[in-house]
Amino acid sequence: VGELIFVGLGLAGTKDLTLRALDAVRHARTVFAEFYTSHLVGATHSQLERELDKRIVLLARDEVESGAERILDAAAQHRTAFVTAGDPMTATTHQDLRIRALRRGIPVRIVHGVSIQVAAAGAAGLHSYKFGRTTTLVFPQPNFNPASPYETVRDNRARGLHTLVLLDLRADEGRYMSAAQGIEVLLGHEQQRRESVVTPDTELVALARVGADDQRVVWGPAKRLREADLGPPLHCLIVPGELHFSEREALELVAAPRV
Amino acid sequence: VGELIFVGLGLAGTKDLTLRALDAVRHARTVFAEFYTSHLVGATHSQLERELDKRIVLLARDEVESGAERILDAAAQHRTAFVTAGDPMTATTHQDLRIRALRRGIPVRIVHGVSIQVAAAGAAGLHSYKFGRTTTLVFPQPNFNPASPYETVRDNRARGLHTLVLLDLRADEGRYMSAAQGIEVLLGHEQQRRESVVTPDTELVALARVGADDQRVVWGPAKRLREADLGPPLHCLIVPGELHFSEREALELVAAPRV
Repeated sequence: VGELIFVGLGLAGTKDLTLRALDAVRHARTVFAEFYTSHLVGATHSQLERELDKRIVLLARDEVESGAERILDAAAQHRTAFVTAGDPMTATTHQDLRIRALRRGIPVRIVHGVSIQVAAAGAAGLHSYKFGRTTTLVFPQPNFNPASPYETVRDNRARGLHTLVLLDLRADEGRYMSAAQGIEVLLGHEQQRRESVVTPDTELVALARVGADDQRVVWGPAKRLREADLGPPLHCLIVPGELHFSEREALELVAAPRV
Repeated sequence: VGELIFVGLGLAGTKDLTLRALDAVRHARTVFAEFYTSHLVGATHSQLERELDKRIVLLARDEVESGAERILDAAAQHRTAFVTAGDPMTATTHQDLRIRALRRGIPVRIVHGVSIQVAAAGAAGLHSYKFGRTTTLVFPQPNFNPASPYETVRDNRARGLHTLVLLDLRADEGRYMSAAQGIEVLLGHEQQRRESVVTPDTELVALARVGADDQRVVWGPAKRLREADLGPPLHCLIVPGELHFSEREALELVAAPRV
């Protein structure tokens, strides 16, 4: 009987791999990967194959979302690893895949990875227990520009809480939302809703390539931050709630030079 | 000039170490560790020293909290690693240490680790973006039994959100709050406040040793869950908000047998 092992690769390069992850991948007969719900900063498919000393089958978006029969058929037969950036269980599609595997009687194991959901707070010097619900901004489209992230930030701020704002990525199209684009989206919602949630004067934190050697953390009012060029993806934003004085001090030290 | 590197060891044993963490520790001249704000499941000090091939200086609680001069003096001179379970930046005391180091002009690097704050949601099959603020229950004392965790759960539930409830540990006294004890504390607050936040019939998820090979996930009403023996620490709780049907299905499959 086979096994399906969900393996998180962490944030950046091949150095965030845990020993448990290496072990799981090396003992798997087939290794699948998907990098459209998440993105491994600074590592290519072939670098990953070299580091793991293993051939990795890269899956397209629809191969995971619709049925995933290819993965499940392999996992029903032999030990199969499914690798993804960050933690493997933060994506809803992966939880769905796990449910389908368990329903088919395939044993499932999870190898957790370093996740932006915890790392971003720490990188910025903010207290992780002061974060409310995380939200994700999607690329606005003519008929689809949901205001739910704006509402999440608003509800968190009403309780004094910080919000981690993740940014859309469409790896198959080579599109990664930048911090500047994310700020424009939030300011666009502000113009429509006018609830003073994210105005041009709201102080935000923008982060790029968290966990990588060239990580950047920038802090300042939205109107100045949207001009900042933070370099290659991934980016994310934090909308602070009430800042404790020690958080403010950490930001002064960590996010320098302030924009 | 020296350097202070904060290194997260992850959740369980020595296999959650990332390649980046191994590298950082092996190239450090001095390695300090503290295991009172967090606890590495299933690994002793000497196992860790063996795996890392390095002597590790174990610090007492007051050595980190009050001044931490010993760590800073070492880091001012040479490359110094400070290792801790989970992610190194989720503890406020570690953020404070980072601030003190930066104020003294000591370069700081962070090696993130796998954290319970993300792993618990994934292990239970719940959607991480549906979690509100995390809270921590402390051992009640005659004059100190704060109701703030109860209020955090209440505020999250009012928005339909799940709450991760971390449990107190006093490693220096060998005391680790069990899931059953945590439930008693929450039910005690309920008896005082009577806001129907966590009643004996509220369905909770209890988790033990997340990420370890003998991880357990149990789901059921508080009155039955408080009878469950989940074995050695660490434990934690999740108080679900509104469960999506796929989350309910995941719990049925993952947390079986249901208590």
